[in-house]
Amino acid sequence: MTRERIYLFDTTLRDGQQTPGIDFSVEDKIAIANMLDAFGIDYVEGGYPGANPTDTAFFEKKRTTRSHFVAFGMTKRAGVSTSNDPGLAILLQSKSDAVCLVAKSWDYHVKVALGCTNEENLESIDQSVKAVSATGKEAMIDCEHFFDGFKNNRGYALACARTAYEAGARWIVLCDTNGGTQPSEVREIVAAVIASGVPGSHLGIHAHNDTGQAVANSLAAVEAGVRQVQGTLNGIGERCGNANLVTIIPTLVLKPAFNERFETSIDAEKLQELTSLSHAFDEMLNRSPDHQMPYVGASAFATKAGIHASALLKDPRTYEHVPPETVGNLRKVMVSDQGGKSNFINALKRRGIVVSKDDPKLDQLIGVVKDREASGYAYEGADASFEMLARRILGSVPEFFLVEGYRAMVERRFDANGNLKTVSEAVVKVKIDGEQIMSVAESVHGPVNALDIALRKDLGKYQAEIADLELADFKVRILNGSTAAVTRVLIESTDATGARWWTVGVSDNVIDASFQALMDSIIYKLMKNRDQAGQIAAE
Amino acid sequence: MTRERIYLFDTTLRDGQQTPGIDFSVEDKIAIANMLDAFGIDYVEGGYPGANPTDTAFFEKKRTTRSHFVAFGMTKRAGVSTSNDPGLAILLQSKSDAVCLVAKSWDYHVKVALGCTNEENLESIDQSVKAVSATGKEAMIDCEHFFDGFKNNRGYALACARTAYEAGARWIVLCDTNGGTQPSEVREIVAAVIASGVPGSHLGIHAHNDTGQAVANSLAAVEAGVRQVQGTLNGIGERCGNANLVTIIPTLVLKPAFNERFETSIDAEKLQELTSLSHAFDEMLNRSPDHQMPYVGASAFATKAGIHASALLKDPRTYEHVPPETVGNLRKVMVSDQGGKSNFINALKRRGIVVSKDDPKLDQLIGVVKDREASGYAYEGADASFEMLARRILGSVPEFFLVEGYRAMVERRFDANGNLKTVSEAVVKVKIDGEQIMSVAESVHGPVNALDIALRKDLGKYQAEIADLELADFKVRILNGSTAAVTRVLIESTDATGARWWTVGVSDNVIDASFQALMDSIIYKLMKNRDQAGQIAAE
Repeated sequence: MTRERIYLFDTTLRDGQQTPGIDFSVEDKIAIANMLDAFGIDYVEGGYPGANPTDTAFFEKKRTTRSHFVAFGMTKRAGVSTSNDPGLAILLQSKSDAVCLVAKSWDYHVKVALGCTNEENLESIDQSVKAVSATGKEAMIDCEHFFDGFKNNRGYALACARTAYEAGARWIVLCDTNGGTQPSEVREIVAAVIASGVPGSHLGIHAHNDTGQAVANSLAAVEAGVRQVQGTLNGIGERCGNANLVTIIPTLVLKPAFNERFETSIDAEKLQELTSLSHAFDEMLNRSPDHQMPYVGASAFATKAGIHASALLKDPRTYEHVPPETVGNLRKVMVSDQGGKSNFINALKRRGIVVSKDDPKLDQLIGVVKDREASGYAYEGADASFEMLARRILGSVPEFFLVEGYRAMVERRFDANGNLKTVSEAVVKVKIDGEQIMSVAESVHGPVNALDIALRKDLGKYQAEIADLELADFKVRILNGSTAAVTRVLIESTDATGARWWTVGVSDNVIDASFQALMDSIIYKLMKNRDQAGQIAAE
Repeated sequence: MTRERIYLFDTTLRDGQQTPGIDFSVEDKIAIANMLDAFGIDYVEGGYPGANPTDTAFFEKKRTTRSHFVAFGMTKRAGVSTSNDPGLAILLQSKSDAVCLVAKSWDYHVKVALGCTNEENLESIDQSVKAVSATGKEAMIDCEHFFDGFKNNRGYALACARTAYEAGARWIVLCDTNGGTQPSEVREIVAAVIASGVPGSHLGIHAHNDTGQAVANSLAAVEAGVRQVQGTLNGIGERCGNANLVTIIPTLVLKPAFNERFETSIDAEKLQELTSLSHAFDEMLNRSPDHQMPYVGASAFATKAGIHASALLKDPRTYEHVPPETVGNLRKVMVSDQGGKSNFINALKRRGIVVSKDDPKLDQLIGVVKDREASGYAYEGADASFEMLARRILGSVPEFFLVEGYRAMVERRFDANGNLKTVSEAVVKVKIDGEQIMSVAESVHGPVNALDIALRKDLGKYQAEIADLELADFKVRILNGSTAAVTRVLIESTDATGARWWTVGVSDNVIDASFQALMDSIIYKLMKNRDQAGQIAAE
C-alpha cells in the first residue's frame, strides 16, 4: 500500500522569531537554516524580507540546498495592483523558492485591521497568488485566524481558502492564530474545508500551543486530511509557542496510527539525529534543554528506582513507548550505573580510548564525572574537557606547562577628557621546564579577553604550536541565581586543520571559570598536535 | 440544560514524585496538599503509604478538608487473602478517604511482573476492591497499561475494567502508562470500554506526555465519556510528565466545546487563582516557571510584533483566545525592535507614563531603544531598565548619586600551603551631594559579587533605603562568539514589598555589563521608593 506524503514546514526563523527573548541575527539564521536543511525539512521559512534589515539581508541569497526556501509576507493591499505594491515586490525579488502570504480569513479582521471590503480581500488573495506564481515561485497562503473566522462566518472563511486554491496556490494553510481551537473542532473544520472543494493535498495546518494542544491539533488535522504541517524547533514561538516539530516528526515516523498511512522526508536513519538537532538548537539559544520534552528530553526515557526500573531492565518495551535510540536519545535507569558504564565505554571508544569494563579506573572516572556534573560541569557539551579528564584518569596527559597564577583587573574611571572609560588588564605567570614566564596584556573587551591574550602571548617553546588556535565561541550560563551564583563557561575552539573542540570551566567566579576553559582548550590543542604527529588519534 | 460533572484528580504527590530531581518531604507534601485543597481539587492522591517512610508518615493524618484524600497502593498479591496482605492492610488503615489500587490490565505484565495467572489477577482486583469498600473508603482501580493491554489482548483488558466495576469500584481509571497512545486511539478504546458495560460515569483517564499529547488525550477521553481526569500541577511526572491539570482545568472551564456540556469544582472565581497556584508550586520546587506554559506562563499573553500589538490594543479578542484575567494572568505587550509606536505607548501607559503619539520625545525614545537593542540590550526582559530609560528621556530621573569609578580584581595564586586560591576584590567610588564615598569589598564568589557588595556597602544617606533590596536572579548571555564577545547581563531584584524588577547591562566586558545592571537596579529601587511615598505610581 502506498503511503501519502506529509510535508514538513519549519517556521522557526519566522514565527519562532516572535518568541519573547529570542532575536536572531543573520548569522544565527544562516546556522539554523543549515541545520534544518541538513536534517531534511521540506520547507524552511526564513522570515519577512522588507520588514526589518535582518530578514532583508537574509533573503539576499538562497540559504538552503535541499529544503524549499520560503519568504513570508502579506498579500497586496487593497486599491493597488500587485505590481504597485512595494511589500509584495520585495517578496517577489527575494532569493526564495516559495512565497507564503498571510491573508485575513476572518471578516472581522478584514474590516478592523485591513479596513477594506470582504470582496477586496478576496481579490488581494487571488491577485497576489497569481503574481507569485507568475515569477515561477511556489505560492502559499496562510489563512490567518482561519478557525475563529470559520466559527464566526463560515462562508467567508471558506471563500478565502477556495479563492487561494482556485488562483493556483500550492498550499492553503489553515492557521489557528490565537491557539485556542480544540482538536475536535480542527477535525470538523478541516473536513468542512475539504467538502467545500479544496483538496487535502493542498491544505496545511499551523497550530499554536495556547491550550497545550498544538501537537494534537496538527496531528488531528493530518488525520482529517491536511498534508502539510507547520511548526518550529523545540516549539518556540509567540505566547505559548508553535507546534513542536521535534515532537510531531517522531510521532509521524514511529507511531503505527500515522506511519501505516503516511510518510515524511525524515527516514529512520535521519530520525536518530533528532535529539542532537534539538539540543544543538537550544545550545544556540544558550538555554538549557527541557528535560521533559517528548522523545528528546534528558528525562524522556528516564526511570527512577523501583519496580518500573527492574521491569525495564528485563524488557524495555514494558515501560517505553518507543526505543530511545530511534530518536538518538538514551535510556536512563537511575537505580544502577550499568547503562551508564556502557555509555562511558562507548564515549571513550569514539575518542580512541579503549578501556575494559572491569578496569577500576573506569569506575573512578565515572565517579569524578558524576561529582563534577553535580557541581555544574556539563561534559555532554564539552568533548575536549571530557577527553582530557578521561586521559588524565585512565592514562596520562603530559604536563606541558604549569600556571603559577594570574591576576585580572577591570577599572572604570573618567579619563582626562571627562569620558567614562573601562580598561582591563591581566597578568599570567607560567612555568615551562623550570623557567618562569610572565605575560601581561590589556584589553578593551574585558578581563577574559585580556587573560586570553596574556595566556597565549608567550608559551615559550609551545608558542608556535598554538599560533593557529582560535576561539570560535564563548558561552556563559549561570546555574543558579544571585551574583554569588555558580557560572559555567563553554568555549569552542578551532584551528587551521578545521578541527573544533569544546571545553568547560565551572566556578562561582566567572573569570576563573573562563580561565579553566581557556586552559583546557590550549592543553587539548597541544595534546592533539602530538596525537596527529604520532598517528595515535583514532576516530 | 444540566451539565455533567467532571471530577479532578491530582496525583502530584504520588506520580509527580517520580519526576527526576523531585523528592518531597512530609512538610512539602503537607504544603502542596493544602494548596490543592484550598484550590478545590476533588481528589488529592498523597502517595503510597508503606512504600517509604515519608508517605507512611504523611498518611498518619488526613491532610485535606474538602478534597478526598487518596492513598495509592497495589491490589493484593495472588495466593493470599486480602486480610493476609500486609501492603493492603497499611492502605486500609491509612487516614485516607479513598484508596486507589493499581492493577495490571495487560496480560503480558500479569505474567512477567506478577507471575500469576490472568484469573488470579482478576480475583485480586475483585477481592481488593471489596476489601476497600468494606472499610467505608471509596475504592478506585488504576488499570495500568490499559491502552497497550487493550491493543494486545482486548478481551482481557476489558475483563479487568469490568471486574473492578462489578466489584463496586467507584472509579476505574484507564492509564496510558507508557504515554505513547494517540488521541484517536483513546477515543476508540474509551468507547469500547463503555460499550462493554462499564459506564463513563465510573471511568477516569490517566495520561502521560510522551508524545506531547497528555492534555489532548485527557480531553479526548472526556469527549468519549470518562468523567474523572487525573493529572499533576504544572505537568510534573515521570519521563515527560503527567497530564498538566493547570492546562486542562481552564480549558474545561472556559472553552465552549467543554463548558457547554460539563462543569467542574472550579468556578470562574477560583480559576483566577490558577496562575498564582502554578507559580507558587514552582516556587516550592525552587525552579523558574515555564514562560510558555498555556494560560499561566509569563509569555502566555505576551505579544511582540507591531501589527499584532496595535490590533490587540484596539480589541484584545483579536489575538487572545481567552481574556488573561480569567486565569489570573496579565496581558503583556512588549517592547522590542520589532515593535511599533503603539507597543511603546502601551508599555509606558502600564507604568503610569502618559505620552502623546505625536510627542517628538517618543520618537527619540524609540530611536534610543532600537539602537540599544541593536547593540545587545533586551528591554523586553528588563522592565525596570526600560522604565528608567523612558523616564530619563521623557521626563526626569533624579541623579541620586554619581559613580566616579570602580576597580575589580581577580587573583589566582598558590597560597602559603601550596593550594590554588582565587580571590576577588572591588573598590567603588561614589559621589553623593558633593561628598566622595569610597567602599571596598572582597568576595570568594568572584568579582561581580565583590562589586555588588562594595556598591551596596555605603550609599550614604540612601543606605537605609536599599537595605531590603535583594538580588534574586542573575543571567549572563553572550551575544556572539569569542572572548571579545558582547555580554548581556540581566538581573532580577526584589525587596520587602514583594516587588520584582529586571534590569539589563550590555558591554563587551562582563564585569561592566553586570555593573550597569546593578546600578540600574539600585536607582530603580530609589525611584520606586519615592513614587510610593508621593503616590505618583500609576497602575
